Amino acid sequence: MRALIFDLDGTLIDTVYAHVVAWQRSFAIDEMIVPAWMLHAKIGLGGKALAIAIGRELGRSIPDDQAEALDKRHGVIKKELLPHAEPLPGAVSLIKHLRELNVPCGIATSGSRTDSQEPLRRLGLSDDAVVVCKSDVKRAKPEPDLFLACQERLKVPAQDCFVVGDAVWDMLAARRSAMLPVGVLSGGIGKAELTEAGAYRVYRDAAELDANLYSLGLLPES
Amino acid sequence: MRALIFDLDGTLIDTVYAHVVAWQRSFAIDEMIVPAWMLHAKIGLGGKALAIAIGRELGRSIPDDQAEALDKRHGVIKKELLPHAEPLPGAVSLIKHLRELNVPCGIATSGSRTDSQEPLRRLGLSDDAVVVCKSDVKRAKPEPDLFLACQERLKVPAQDCFVVGDAVWDMLAARRSAMLPVGVLSGGIGKAELTEAGAYRVYRDAAELDANLYSLGLLPES
Repeated sequence: MRALIFDLDGTLIDTVYAHVVAWQRSFAIDEMIVPAWMLHAKIGLGGKALAIAIGRELGRSIPDDQAEALDKRHGVIKKELLPHAEPLPGAVSLIKHLRELNVPCGIATSGSRTDSQEPLRRLGLSDDAVVVCKSDVKRAKPEPDLFLACQERLKVPAQDCFVVGDAVWDMLAARRSAMLPVGVLSGGIGKAELTEAGAYRVYRDAAELDANLYSLGLLPES
Repeated sequence: MRALIFDLDGTLIDTVYAHVVAWQRSFAIDEMIVPAWMLHAKIGLGGKALAIAIGRELGRSIPDDQAEALDKRHGVIKKELLPHAEPLPGAVSLIKHLRELNVPCGIATSGSRTDSQEPLRRLGLSDDAVVVCKSDVKRAKPEPDLFLACQERLKVPAQDCFVVGDAVWDMLAARRSAMLPVGVLSGGIGKAELTEAGAYRVYRDAAELDANLYSLGLLPES
């Protein structure tokens, strides 16, 4: 295994719970009462796909334009709730460590480029880092497009890439990309859910992953 | 089995995610950066116990008075974030159904009486409902005091009571009370976590529990 592709929200930065509350408020404005845990289970999907999936659970069909409006409003509310996302424990050192080890790594996020800029800077990623956002591909997660675009830019074959994510949607999109998924608990989704979705390993967070890089077969034998 | 004792937050009302964000902000004001998922895993504990447990995870000792101040501030922020808690799907009908069936039920919450009043009204609970709050007992969850006080007021032996909750702390406190714990997923904690903590059954939410009351042996045989 040669490379790591990271999800951003819930994996490297602590934004999942703000997303959940923001989505809930956005739906409430359209007079849809959505339980928070149902939204939590959908975080990681592209925004439009999330809105449509929630509509389905509520037994109603949400048209494309409403899904887009719900997503846009969720983004505005999320920024009000959490203007500055914190890196999750160990995320900054993990990125630094991988650079020192010359392990290629990239970011693939269902989020927008604008929203990702400040977090990426806080994670210590340089301007030439490989970052693939929603606008770079046709279809967001759980479609494989984001991970495949990231792997192409890293110039590493898919089968040599791990995908690190906190959502079952990362596990699904990784498997559809012929990559091996690795789970982290820092988005609040349980170990069993990630394992059942196909995670090869599940770590607490970026810090535990960093301390166990050898278990992924990424470090040269010593 | 004769009676049901319900946790409130995350079990009957949709407040867990607001609690998480409020706790995170409360800690941040004291310059402690706490990942949201770590807080989520502690929701259901009494406030002081939660603050002290988080301190321990951060590797610092939080004195009693600071823990109390953190909890109090969390309560204020939570009310700002979510002035009116929504009943979770099926919760109102479940309470009504149990009343029609003459199944004794009570509420045992680590929250305060003031914070519980509006939610209990929205759940359709009458003024004579058995509700045990933090201030009614010496020690909150995961100690058994809340559930034992509730069972005494219901006048049903502990071994004839189910406890319905969304947190592993409910499962722990139920078992310490010699009651059978039943889990619900509506607080965002996974099925495996609740089962591993001892849940006899895990339902999606109050609605699914209501549709499966027979599986708890509470209904008379037909």
